[in-house]
Parts: sequence; C-alpha cells; structure tokens
Amino acid sequence: MTTKPDIGALLNPRTIAVIGAAPLGQGIRGRIVEVLRAHPFEGKIFPVSRSLDEVQGLKAYPSIEACPEPVDLAVFVIPAKFVAAELERCGKAGVKAAIIISSGFAEEPGETGARMQAELRAIAARYNMAVNGPNSEGFANLEANLCATFSPAVVPSGVSLLPERQGNGRVAVVAQSGGMGFAFYDRGRPKELTFNHIITTGNEACLEVFDYVEHLVDEGRTDAILLLIEDVKTAGTFRRAAAKALKAGVPLIVNKIGKTDAGARAAASHTAALAGSYSAFQANARHYGLIEGNNLEEMVDIVQGFLAWKGKLPAGRRMGICTGSGGGGGWMADTCQSHGLEVPTLDAETRAKIDPVLPSYGTSQNPVDGTAQAIRQVGYGGMAELVVSSPVVDGVMVVMSARAADHLLHEKEKLAALKASSPKPILMWTYTLPAAASVRVLTDAGYPLFTNMQHAVTTMRHMADWRAHRERFLASEGTAARLHDAGPAVAAALAGAAGALTEAQSKPLLAAYGIGSAEHERLAKSREAAIAALGEIGGAVALKVQSPDILHKTEAGAVALNATTADEVGAAYDRILASAKAYAPNARIDGVLVQAMAKKGREVILGVNRDAQFGPVLMLGLGGVHVEVLKDVAFAPVPLTRDDATRLIGQLKGAGLLDAHRGQPAADKAALAELIVRLSQFAADHADRIAEIDLNPVIVHPEGQGATIADALIVTTNQS
Amino acid sequence: MTTKPDIGALLNPRTIAVIGAAPLGQGIRGRIVEVLRAHPFEGKIFPVSRSLDEVQGLKAYPSIEACPEPVDLAVFVIPAKFVAAELERCGKAGVKAAIIISSGFAEEPGETGARMQAELRAIAARYNMAVNGPNSEGFANLEANLCATFSPAVVPSGVSLLPERQGNGRVAVVAQSGGMGFAFYDRGRPKELTFNHIITTGNEACLEVFDYVEHLVDEGRTDAILLLIEDVKTAGTFRRAAAKALKAGVPLIVNKIGKTDAGARAAASHTAALAGSYSAFQANARHYGLIEGNNLEEMVDIVQGFLAWKGKLPAGRRMGICTGSGGGGGWMADTCQSHGLEVPTLDAETRAKIDPVLPSYGTSQNPVDGTAQAIRQVGYGGMAELVVSSPVVDGVMVVMSARAADHLLHEKEKLAALKASSPKPILMWTYTLPAAASVRVLTDAGYPLFTNMQHAVTTMRHMADWRAHRERFLASEGTAARLHDAGPAVAAALAGAAGALTEAQSKPLLAAYGIGSAEHERLAKSREAAIAALGEIGGAVALKVQSPDILHKTEAGAVALNATTADEVGAAYDRILASAKAYAPNARIDGVLVQAMAKKGREVILGVNRDAQFGPVLMLGLGGVHVEVLKDVAFAPVPLTRDDATRLIGQLKGAGLLDAHRGQPAADKAALAELIVRLSQFAADHADRIAEIDLNPVIVHPEGQGATIADALIVTTNQS
Repeated sequence: MTTKPDIGALLNPRTIAVIGAAPLGQGIRGRIVEVLRAHPFEGKIFPVSRSLDEVQGLKAYPSIEACPEPVDLAVFVIPAKFVAAELERCGKAGVKAAIIISSGFAEEPGETGARMQAELRAIAARYNMAVNGPNSEGFANLEANLCATFSPAVVPSGVSLLPERQGNGRVAVVAQSGGMGFAFYDRGRPKELTFNHIITTGNEACLEVFDYVEHLVDEGRTDAILLLIEDVKTAGTFRRAAAKALKAGVPLIVNKIGKTDAGARAAASHTAALAGSYSAFQANARHYGLIEGNNLEEMVDIVQGFLAWKGKLPAGRRMGICTGSGGGGGWMADTCQSHGLEVPTLDAETRAKIDPVLPSYGTSQNPVDGTAQAIRQVGYGGMAELVVSSPVVDGVMVVMSARAADHLLHEKEKLAALKASSPKPILMWTYTLPAAASVRVLTDAGYPLFTNMQHAVTTMRHMADWRAHRERFLASEGTAARLHDAGPAVAAALAGAAGALTEAQSKPLLAAYGIGSAEHERLAKSREAAIAALGEIGGAVALKVQSPDILHKTEAGAVALNATTADEVGAAYDRILASAKAYAPNARIDGVLVQAMAKKGREVILGVNRDAQFGPVLMLGLGGVHVEVLKDVAFAPVPLTRDDATRLIGQLKGAGLLDAHRGQPAADKAALAELIVRLSQFAADHADRIAEIDLNPVIVHPEGQGATIADALIVTTNQS
Repeated sequence: MTTKPDIGALLNPRTIAVIGAAPLGQGIRGRIVEVLRAHPFEGKIFPVSRSLDEVQGLKAYPSIEACPEPVDLAVFVIPAKFVAAELERCGKAGVKAAIIISSGFAEEPGETGARMQAELRAIAARYNMAVNGPNSEGFANLEANLCATFSPAVVPSGVSLLPERQGNGRVAVVAQSGGMGFAFYDRGRPKELTFNHIITTGNEACLEVFDYVEHLVDEGRTDAILLLIEDVKTAGTFRRAAAKALKAGVPLIVNKIGKTDAGARAAASHTAALAGSYSAFQANARHYGLIEGNNLEEMVDIVQGFLAWKGKLPAGRRMGICTGSGGGGGWMADTCQSHGLEVPTLDAETRAKIDPVLPSYGTSQNPVDGTAQAIRQVGYGGMAELVVSSPVVDGVMVVMSARAADHLLHEKEKLAALKASSPKPILMWTYTLPAAASVRVLTDAGYPLFTNMQHAVTTMRHMADWRAHRERFLASEGTAARLHDAGPAVAAALAGAAGALTEAQSKPLLAAYGIGSAEHERLAKSREAAIAALGEIGGAVALKVQSPDILHKTEAGAVALNATTADEVGAAYDRILASAKAYAPNARIDGVLVQAMAKKGREVILGVNRDAQFGPVLMLGLGGVHVEVLKDVAFAPVPLTRDDATRLIGQLKGAGLLDAHRGQPAADKAALAELIVRLSQFAADHADRIAEIDLNPVIVHPEGQGATIADALIVTTNQS
C-alpha cells in the first residue's frame, strides 16, 4: 500500500451497496438490509442482487456497476467463494470501502480459507480500499444512524441509539469479536453512556483494531475506547495508536483474549488470531497506559468514571468515603485498601466542618459515617462536598441507597453544582438496586451510579493510575534514546555473527553500550595464557569454555570457579577442555574465558526475548530460585527510561529482597536501573538482529558499588 | 445463662408488642408499625404507648402488662435510656424475645452506652430472653410475612416477599449491618431467590451472628446462608455453628469487614504482628469451609449457584464451555483458567457427538464454539447436554445471549429435563442484558442466569472447592486428636511456668509431644560443663544464653555458632555470659545451652499465637527473608489433621521452594507436616495456657531426613 486506506469512507459513507441483499426472513442477507433501513440514516442504500429487482421495498441492482451513484461502502453478505471477484469489481468501480460479513476464510481449518483471505488483502491493497472483515459482524456509526451490521443489539427496540443527555462525552468500541463488541453497547446504553462507534473487525485481513483506534483518536471526537482483542497483528500500528491515544487523553480500556492456554486456543479458532505471548502484550499495553479490564460490566463502569471526570482525574490514591450505612462504609474501606487505594484519617479542619452535622453515633474520621440522619440533613451531595474539600483526599467514594429517589431529588441542584465545581472526582455506589428516578437524577447531574462496589473502586484506582502514567509519559516524551554512538559498530558486529555469540564475544558489544565491562577477563587460547590471565586479573578467577556450540556451559561441566593459583588455573583449563570435548565432540572451541570472580551481592537475571508480534521484550527476574521456582519476573518493551526501569524493578513481587535487611545492606538499585536502561537501548537499536540476550546472573552489589554481569549470551536472528 | 434463649420465639412469634409505637410520619416509631401491618402476618400486633389509645388503627396499650394476651416478642423503638427498665418489665411479664432497634448503646463514644448495653445483657440473661440488638435494623421472617424492621427493602412495592417458584431452596441472611443485610435481599429478590429470613444483629449485646446460624441450621429449613460480619464475639459458637452447617450441607457465604486493618499483611516473625484478628478469622473460616465473597452481587450469585445445584456440585475443577460467540467463549476460557478452573480439550468420543451439529467454522475442542448456527439447530440446552456428557469435565459453563428469549422458549422443556437429569452443574452466563422472558424461562427450568462472567466462574470454583472441602471434613470427623498422653505432665509444667520459658525449658515439653528432641543439647551452668557437653554431643555446637529475661538472644550478642574445640567452647561460654550481662544486667541466667549445629536444609518458621477472639492460631512461614520481607505466611486453627497440614504447606506462595531444584533435593515435607500436626495438638491441648510458641527457625532436611528445631520459645499466659 502506498497510501493508507480511508477509514473515514468506511465509517461515514454517503452511499452503501449491499452485495447479496435479500428479503426479510432470509437470514443475515435479509437482516442486514432490515437493520440498515430501520434507523434514519441519511445516506442511500442500494441492494445488489442477481435475481431480484426489489429488496425490502428498495430498488435492487444487478451489479455494483449498475448502481445509480458512486458507492462509498459495499457490504458483502455473499458466500466466501464469490467475495474476491466481487471485491475486485468494487475496486474497479471506485468503491472506497467494504465490510465483509461473510465467513469461511482464515478461521476455517485447512488452507483454502487462508488463501482466499490473502487474496482479499491483495485486492484491497491494489485499490487502496478500507476493508473490514471478513468474518465480521460489521459496525455501527450511531451518531450517523448507520448500522451496517446484523447485530440484534441495534435492532430498534423503542430506545434511541443515543441517550438524550450526552454531557460526559463519547465512547467507541473496537472489538475483533462481533458478539462481544455489541455486548458493550448492550450493557452501556442502559447506563446512558453515549457510544459513537461500535466497530467489529473479524479476521482483520486488512484493517486491524489499532488502525481504527488511530483513526478515532486522529478524528478527535471520541473520549474513551473500549477494546476487545484476540491478537495484535502489527505492533507498529499498536504503538503508534496507543501513544497517540495516551497523548490525546483518550483512555483505552482493553481485554485481550488468549491470556491462558484455553483462551488462546479459542481465539485461534475464532478469528484465526495468533495469540503471541501474553506477557509481551501486557508489557506493551502497560507501557502505553492501556487499562486492562476483566469483564464487560467492569469495563463499561471504568469508561463511565473516566468520561464523567475527564480533566479532573485523581491526583493520588487517597480516598475519602462518605456513607449513610456504617456496614457499607466499612466494606468500601476494605475494598479500597485491598485494591491499592488509601483511606487516610481526615484532617482536623475538615472534621471540624463535618462533626456538627453528625449525630453522636456518627464519625468523621473516614469513612465518614453520616448515618441516615446526616443524609437527611445535608444529603449525599452535602456530605461529599464536605469530604472532598479535605486536603488529604484525592477523590471521594459515596456509599448510598438509591432504592428511593426522594433524597436525591431534593438535592438535584446541589449535586449538579458540586459536579461542576469539584476539582476531584466523586464516584457513587448504591448498595441497593437503584430506582430509575435515582439514576435519572444522578445522570442529569453528570454522575454515573455504580451498582458494583468493586467496580467503583477499580475505576477510581485506574483513573488515578492512568493520570499518573500519562503525566510521566508526557514528561518523558522526546527523551527516548537515539541510536547509541556505538550503534553502527555493534550493528556491524552483530550482522557478521553466526547465530549465537559466546560470552567473550558478547561482552565487548554490551560493554560498548556501558553494559558491564570486559576489563577483568581474558580469552585464553592456551593453558599458559590462562595462567598469565590470572596474573593480570589477580585474586580469584572463574574459567569457562567459549564455544558457539556450547550455550549451556555448566551443564557441559565446562566451568570452574574460584581458582586462585597457577596450578589451579592450569588444572581447571585442562579439565574444562576435556569436559567440553566429551560433551560435544564436534564443538568449535574459541578458548577459555578467564574472569575475575564477582563480588557478593543479590542475583538477578536480565534478558531480552523477541516476541513474534511485538519484537524485543526485556525481562527482569530475581535470582536463581525466585525466577525458576516462583516465576517472579517482570516484562517491558524497549527502550526504557530510567523511571520506567525503576518502576519495572518495583513490579517484582520480591522487590523488597533488594532492600536492606537484617544487617545486609540494600542492593544498588540505581545501578540495576541504569543497566536496564542501557540494555533496553541495546535491544531497541538492534531489534531485528537480536533473538535473545541473557545476562544471567547479574550480581547487584551493595548500594554505591554497582553490578557485575557474571555471564552473558547474545543470540542473533542470523542463520548459524 | 443456664439454658439457651429460644431464638425460635424471636423469629416465629405469635404476638408482638411494639414498645414506643407511634402514628405514621413519626420516623422509625411509626414506620415499624406500618411495615409490620403492611404484610399479611397472621399473628397479633399490640402497640404499646403511654399517650395514645390507638396507633395506625390498632388499639394501643399503656404498658406491656396491659396487653390482652401474653406477648412473645417485644420490639423496642424508645430512647436508649428507657430501654433497660422496659426490658425488665417485659422479662417479668414473661415476654420471651425482644428486638432493640433503639441506638445509643456501645456504638456511642464514652462509657455510658457500653454500660447500658451490659445492663441489657444482664436482664436478658436473667429472664432467658432471646434479645436482638440493640442498634439493630430488626429482622424479617418472609415465609411468615413478618417484617419486624424499618428497612425500606421490605416496604410493599407490588412485589411479593417470596417468588412464585421456589424450587431451588431457601437462603437466609444474617448480618450485623442492617443496611447491608437487607441489601442482599434487595439484590437477590429480583433474581427470584427465595429468602426465608433476613436477620440483622446490630450491637449483639446478647445474640450473635453465629447463634442465629446455629438455630437456622438446627431448624433444617435453610439451604444456604449469607453472612456479613464485623467481629466474631464467641469463637466457640462460631465453631459449633460452622461445623454444623458444613456437616448439614449448608454453605455459609461470608464477608468480614475489617480485612485491611488486620495483621495478615503485616505478618513478620515479630510475634504481635503475626496473627491479627483477620488472619485468625480467615484461618478458622477456611477450616470450616466458609466461602468468602467480595461484594453483594457476587455473594448473591454464589448462593444462586449453590441452591440450583445442591447435591450435584462439581466433583472437580474441569469445565466444558459451550458458546454461540467465539469471543465470549474465549473470554470465558481465560476467566476460568485465571480463577483456577481447568478447560481441558474434550475427548474424541464427545467431540464425535458434537461435530455433526457444528458448521465448518465451529469447533468442538473446548470451548465448544457452536456458533449461532448450532445454537439455532440444537439450542443452548442441546449444546450443554452434549458437553456435560464428556467424561473429562466436571461441569459446564454456557455462554449465551439472552437478549431475546426466542431460542430459550423453544427449548423450555429440554432445559428443564436437562436440569433434572444432569449429574453435573451447568451455569449460564449471558453477555447481553437478558430479557425478562429469558430470565423467566431459565428460572422456571431451575437455572440461575449470571450477567457477570467472573461471578459465574468464581461460583463454579467455590462449588467445586466446597464440595471437596466438605468431603474431607466429613471423612476426618472423629479423627481429631484426643489429649496427648503427655498432656497432663506438660499441663503441670506450663501451669508452673513464670511467663516465658527458655529454649532449654521449652524443648523438653515440646519433645514430649514428639516435636523435635532435646537429645543433642545440654544446659551448661559452668564453663567446664559446656566443654563436657561438647564431648558428649560431638561435632560442631552452638551456644546460647538461657534466660527468661532475654528472649532475643542474638540481639543480646549471647549466641555463638560452630564451636568445635574445647577452647572455642570455653571462650564462647565466657563471651556469651559477658554479653548477656552487659545487655541485661539484672537478667536471671539459667546457664548456656550447648547444642549440636543443625544439618543443612530449608528454613521455615512455625509458630502459635493467641488470637483474642479465636484462641490459638498456628502460623507457618518460609525462612528468614521470605517471612520477613515477602510476608509469605499461612495460618490455621488447631488441631490439624495430617491432610490439613499438607494443605497448609501448599498455601505458601513459595511452597515450590521446598521441592527439588537444580540438584538440590526436595525438602522433607512429610516431616514438616508431621511437625505441624504435633505442634497443633500441643497448642490445642494447652490452648488457655499458651500465649505464643516460636519455633524459629525449623530446618527441614532433605526427604527422609526429618527436620530440626533450631530454636524454640514458649510464652505462657501466666503472669511472669
């Protein structure tokens, strides 16, 4: 493709042809025309049918060319085997966009479907058409009353596509799964959320989820996006779109299917998704501040919180809680704390303002238990207003019973005024099922009403974290490292390597980036050279065979530790070569590396792996048993800033093991962070050339004493 | 109290007096009469009022004595200060039960309220009255149409208190918080759950949550109980009621407020922090199979699953999934696996039965993606029936869209037949909001319909775990250890101890229960004796000061390790005594313990702490840094069976560290489990005498080689 296809033409067509349109009752072919016509879409609809002159009251045309006006969008509901030829005709006829609802492509077992799908891709590219699908449930542009889908969710039911009040902004849905994509709308519309687009993408022969995301963010009319994805086909598109969204202040709330084996198996057969590694996805998603949701309701609830408090997201995690039910307040406090929010005791000044409205059995400490009496006196809004003014809180959680609307109706204006004036977010949870009138009052005043307490809490937590993440992201923009000065030389060396590099070959390349040093080691090609190396290095040394064919030196018995005399070094040299030969008789042996024994410290593992979808992913793990038995590892994309690296260390469950403990000094976390930053730049600069880097172990010495790379291995993507 | 008060009289009264009854509009005093009268309760209601002859159309009486018939239940809505005197009058008048709605007792700051509450308790005891409250929201016996509460949840609203269809059994609610207690009903009634009792307990001056639980289980008319508790006042009542419930097959679904204040997170080897009340509660709750829920909806959903599939709970964690939406099936599979359920590939035989009904793009692997086409052909029930027959699944999760009821209406009979015949549970989740008609069809057929996917999954997981737990509990019944043979001797020794026991004093007592041995150690009271001890013990020895006044021997510098010669032992003896004297000049010194150095192994910590509510709680933690930095500890009540002990070890996050790893042999987990069992019996036999036991560290040697207690400390509850 030379230019990008026009997604605008797909989502905002003026003329639509339905290829394969049929009368009502003929399944999807009839349904698609019915749904299109059921809403007051202002454009024109041309049924295309070989056999019919009229479809559902509309004049039908025998072919795309026969349509009376140029067609912007063609919707395909014909059998898979006919799609390619018709798409070609559309291309020739100047059609700019297509939705291929038809299934029977790459999601089918066997090669035929995949081949047909590749054909679609080629045709779309040839004519630069924006093609959605195949195996897609289509999309709805709700503001345009355009529902090019057979989803039951947009079949008219007496409820308008858009809510009456649209004060809090718009959300779009982009999902590979049609059923789930429209389920977000089905769940969110009754909550008075304004959806502008629901886009389902199916097999993604051409356009992928993040193509749409980028389009929506560029267009600037969407305030949040709900995403359900099964795979990320083009990491570059993902990164570009995710970065744009974060910069523009558009939160992306996502669930990725394929987190577990069973999920990955399902995604593969569903939309032919290649799940890739979930940890690579998650590392990248976190980097760009994507918010991971667990279920439909939670994701819709999170969106509601963001839309309502856009521009007033919490500056921290400290929550005030006000409640009319003591039990409800306690439960909310537990839930806040278990989800990482803090519930501080309120300051004396704020308490002095609250106490006068409380009965003797109420409390202003936090949770502020106003009791039913205070609620009657000052209302939920009045209570929230008092609490939100405290300098020790970043937001307020209100615990209410919205079973009856009377209290809320009384304070309608106060609630609206508070919504407008409060500089901090206020989320409301009702422990009873709310009356419709309660929801109406709160919606009119701009507040979402949560019925699930945990969702209210996770929403607030995500709002705080996302704001902090975004501020860091914006602050670090432009600070990303450019190609390192040593880049060209390292690139040349890597290009010339045959598969894996030995430790002795790897270390100088890493050292060129300031990653460790090759100063205290020598490659000895003879017994005598090994003994001479001991003299130069001094102290105790380790010896290790160096061979591109022996990557697991310890397993080969080709390592010796703590040799301190010439005799010990000589004996070790001989033994290592003998072991190596016994282990791999045909191995190419470069020599034996003689290196200073590392000083003591905490062991960590640093590595880089190449993910099929996302490219290099950096891995940090805590020493031997922690990474191997407890799987205590954290992942990140590359490159990383110093701040990213520090936070990556903090992500380890056993991060506390690096702190001072029982007389053992703290580990040099600053040195470790710096090492991570440099390794991440190395991996980013040579992304295509690196299959794997292992620094294992890295010994992190006490504070101020740096870190030593005790072993290093680079595997290139070159054929060995 | 000589006999237990009659809770039956409280919950099933024939005559009720309302002390302080008032006309409508006079707050709670009017409301309580209004609510009582609004339902067709068959008993009699006597308003008691000093000033009125009639209240809301009922003849009023000036005092309890003036009521025309003996009163079973008195409901108090008068100010706190008048309650005691009136309760006394009720007692004299032969009233059997009371609800004290009035607040202003122990929940008030200051001592007055607490004193008044103690008075109520004394009066209730004197007359053996069953007293609910004070500060209670009352209760509702829904089958009797008796709502002795001012809760808005039972104010008539056109919806009957009980659903029409009650096929799946009854649930009761017992909650300290009135608002939350009735909120369960508010949430569950629209789901067609049958509630028989909602009991809120307030301050619990007399009757506690588990008194009611025991009554309900004894009565045998309740199939599950929802609990919201803030504290457990009498551990014995808790244990008795919880054991009865588990035995009777009545699941208790509970949330305890106060989770985050408690010590589980702060657990460290420092004693006071180890077993805060929440970890003690949780350890006990787990022991009796209580199911912890996180929020109102989840708890109601869990109850629905249990009621629907009582007697057919899953025999394991393997789930079949069938779906009409590929995306929904994948998401369900992910959610199952992330919550500990398995999603195995189906067996060939079952697949051969399913494949014929699938289109080419469907799959029978599991999730079984039937696609919309298969759903049309065989229905959700037909799909579920095929999947549930697989020998590799223990239950089935159905993913559906219940937005329209047409499919479900078609298979109404099939669904009901499947519900009756299926030997395994089938839970249904709808990704769209369900039509009322869908809920009706499924409810009539006996299926709850979940709208929250995670709740469907956690419900299935709890159902499987609870069944397994209950089977273990029933199997181990009667195997609980009786008093150990050494019990009387140890009891006498502990009774005579002054506060803390030194290691040398503690070890023989523990050894009497088979907990470690005192064989390879000697208490030396002189330098010469210490040197002689080395000769007797042989090898390398450790020396430690023994003083009831020096519990932290290492801190006092009064420990020496690895002494192997007479000179070393002598020097260590002198140094230790000098250090001890410098550290605590007035300490009583019993001597120096000379003991064999422990062989190598994995370090664990075993301890017992006395919880204020639950008594002894056993704690297991992984060695030094794991317990201190990573807070990796697990708690259990005492005594424990061998199976309990093995599962306790498995609860540690780092349990894998005890397995074989890189040439290091597996630790002797069997020996550790045996040690736990014996320590638990020791703690149970001497529960009242033990404030704390610390075995820290315990060295667990390689498999077959046992474990060594390297240090031991018993602190008694005796005054020192």
